Amino acid sequence: MSEKKIPYKIYLDESEIPQNWYNVRADMPTKPAPLLNPATGAPLTAEEMSGIFCEELVAQELDNDTAYIPIPQEIRDFYKMYRPAPLIRAYCLEKALGTPAKIYYKFEGNNTSGSHKLNSAIAQAYYAKKQGLKGVTTETGAGQWGTALSMACAYLGLDCKVFMVKVSYEQKPFRREVMRTYGAEVTPSPSMTTAVGRKILEEHPGTTGSLGCAISEAVEVATSTPGYRYVLGSVLNQVLLHQSVIGLESKAALDKYGVKPDIIIGCAGGGSNLGGLISPFMGEKLRGEKDYRFIAVEPASCPSFTRGKFAYDFCDTGKICPLAKMYTLGSGFIPSANHAGGLRFHGMSSTLSQLYHDGMMEAVAVEQTAVFEAAEKFARIEGILPAPESSHAIRVAIDEALKCKETGEEKTILFGLTGTGYFDMVAYQKFNDGVMTDYIPTDEDLAVGFSALPVVPGQE
Amino acid sequence: MSEKKIPYKIYLDESEIPQNWYNVRADMPTKPAPLLNPATGAPLTAEEMSGIFCEELVAQELDNDTAYIPIPQEIRDFYKMYRPAPLIRAYCLEKALGTPAKIYYKFEGNNTSGSHKLNSAIAQAYYAKKQGLKGVTTETGAGQWGTALSMACAYLGLDCKVFMVKVSYEQKPFRREVMRTYGAEVTPSPSMTTAVGRKILEEHPGTTGSLGCAISEAVEVATSTPGYRYVLGSVLNQVLLHQSVIGLESKAALDKYGVKPDIIIGCAGGGSNLGGLISPFMGEKLRGEKDYRFIAVEPASCPSFTRGKFAYDFCDTGKICPLAKMYTLGSGFIPSANHAGGLRFHGMSSTLSQLYHDGMMEAVAVEQTAVFEAAEKFARIEGILPAPESSHAIRVAIDEALKCKETGEEKTILFGLTGTGYFDMVAYQKFNDGVMTDYIPTDEDLAVGFSALPVVPGQE
Repeated sequence: MSEKKIPYKIYLDESEIPQNWYNVRADMPTKPAPLLNPATGAPLTAEEMSGIFCEELVAQELDNDTAYIPIPQEIRDFYKMYRPAPLIRAYCLEKALGTPAKIYYKFEGNNTSGSHKLNSAIAQAYYAKKQGLKGVTTETGAGQWGTALSMACAYLGLDCKVFMVKVSYEQKPFRREVMRTYGAEVTPSPSMTTAVGRKILEEHPGTTGSLGCAISEAVEVATSTPGYRYVLGSVLNQVLLHQSVIGLESKAALDKYGVKPDIIIGCAGGGSNLGGLISPFMGEKLRGEKDYRFIAVEPASCPSFTRGKFAYDFCDTGKICPLAKMYTLGSGFIPSANHAGGLRFHGMSSTLSQLYHDGMMEAVAVEQTAVFEAAEKFARIEGILPAPESSHAIRVAIDEALKCKETGEEKTILFGLTGTGYFDMVAYQKFNDGVMTDYIPTDEDLAVGFSALPVVPGQE
Repeated sequence: MSEKKIPYKIYLDESEIPQNWYNVRADMPTKPAPLLNPATGAPLTAEEMSGIFCEELVAQELDNDTAYIPIPQEIRDFYKMYRPAPLIRAYCLEKALGTPAKIYYKFEGNNTSGSHKLNSAIAQAYYAKKQGLKGVTTETGAGQWGTALSMACAYLGLDCKVFMVKVSYEQKPFRREVMRTYGAEVTPSPSMTTAVGRKILEEHPGTTGSLGCAISEAVEVATSTPGYRYVLGSVLNQVLLHQSVIGLESKAALDKYGVKPDIIIGCAGGGSNLGGLISPFMGEKLRGEKDYRFIAVEPASCPSFTRGKFAYDFCDTGKICPLAKMYTLGSGFIPSANHAGGLRFHGMSSTLSQLYHDGMMEAVAVEQTAVFEAAEKFARIEGILPAPESSHAIRVAIDEALKCKETGEEKTILFGLTGTGYFDMVAYQKFNDGVMTDYIPTDEDLAVGFSALPVVPGQE
């Protein structure tokens, strides 16, 4: 089909919403390492997991073999409210850059949660409802995951308890109000409502909280309240599975026009968006059918892939969660106040970590001011105000397109635009006022995090 | 075509973006009354207008005869970034209400300005650029119009000076930052940068400003700075013309499925969204081809249609603008602090006023808490967090659907969902906290506004 026929926005039909999620683990020659029980050092069993997670989600978490897992019709019906998400040809950006590269982006911000998080939130809430549970608990930092979960729970009539890091609760009151509008109970963490919260407040009066603490409180409430389970918006295998709709729709849209991307770029915090975007393409690469360059983009202030260690570590700073093998800066690593809250995680999805370790993908770290320069340029040219997280991918997509301008290569670039920045205007204001700064941890900073890695048998 | 085939979201092709705007005035037997020069009482000439507005926009403002005016290709290209906007079948809302009514809404919030305002902003900016101007000035209250204009100007490389009502500038810093991110110069009004601003500040030190004052400052800068003109986001005939894309796309989408709405509902502040949504349907009604019920929804706190007078009045509280014949509460009427900032205008589009006066449409006034009840219900059921303005239409759409439930009638309802509420969370918070109040002006309150209506020859 001729180039000219590609529209600005490629919308698939509702009937083309994927029927199945794609589980990239099925095509991985080396599977991601299993979660370990931190007390015993043994792989976590389904039974151990089922006290924390819903049963069907435990099955998905442990399933390294089934390539295609059917998406229940009820979830597909919910997806119809905001999916298929558009795949956008960045004609305006290409022209402004003067590049021969063809740039596409999958825009996941066209829903009220403002990001791709809703894809997994509805799946996790659905299985909780199906299991007859009364409600779910979770933590939220930047607030995108909490908002998405609130929306999914409101739709299904499920109770939703969100522990929001206190500093975010106070600094992002509007995020909090969106969650409350969707009926969620939002508690600033640490709180006096949990034993772990009271203990932390006693030890650190006046603390503004952390994601690790909020996780601890959410898990405590889930495991101590009958009819509740805990849900998580990233890192886990099940989340990458649900997010595969991003990549499946992107691939279907490109296939319609006979377009094959050369480079696929996504921002990486816990890996939910990147893992979802690349999965069907990675499957082709793993099966030796096609080759692609995959680039994970992370903040220079929290460089798990580019400067982390591939080791077993705790997923939370409170060290109550299972151990995961992943690229990590150490659960004691405190990321600086980078505004891309969704990328401020010390670790990384085990699946993506294994793929990176096996040389199947690349990673680059970028600095915050360079990211916001790209974000502002993109907003003005393409008309969408991007989230700081998403803007990491924009930065590298622009950099790759400019390389094509130098070499004259007509490469096709696909990147994930995970969400919108409407609730991140404090960060934009800092950029607009010229007072935004960069931060790169020193080797000494990183050594502190590495020194606290847990001792696991068989791990160096 | 069978009912079942209608998807959740009807997306037209990019090729189906309208080629022409539709000018409903061409089909009106009684044309809207002309703008008058307040000094002479005579109809404003094109020459008088061209000092304030761009030439092509003056022509559009005065053209009561041409039914279809071509949309320049450059504007259609910009429209492709966010149009065609989806027409959504509210299956979830119908089910939740248990109504036999079929509900559709045209969603105009899927762009970074968060509302339909972008449809006219790009048109007005385009004609300014085409005329070789350097920039435009405007005022903004709630901020949707200012944001839309900033985006359009950033795209075209046009300078954009926005006077933002001081109280909004301080209470809505995020709106301000979005405009700055798009390169606009945002000045809190009243300011020391204009003669009128300095005069007002001298007379009323510490004032938090008003829309009327911001208009005065924007007009002063436009008329005193070479290469600048003033642009306005509502009320004017030209704005309704540009906004006709809303109705044209809605009609094209419904026609594809052989659906004819019985009732068409829109919120009404200055009339830009309502006028755009209903125009092609109103054309059919005016030509006697089909009948429709049109319902304008306004806040009970600012009831121009339902309690105003049809009279010549100033469009601004500063009384420097031309006189327009419209339903008005008097330019001295100060609307209470209703959160639907976009509906806090004392007057109304002359075109819609004439149609209402001629019995072609109905109007209802609704109270704020009832509006937010509808907004929250809609957000939870349909997954979109609506703007307070848009939620006025949702309230009446739900009311009409519930009437159908009582009578068993299977009416088809179409309403305009003009935008999203991401920057209105202060209002949602008041509702969530149960501290939102209603306000209905007394007859005495209204008498004050009416007493200040200007004396115009031939007007009672």
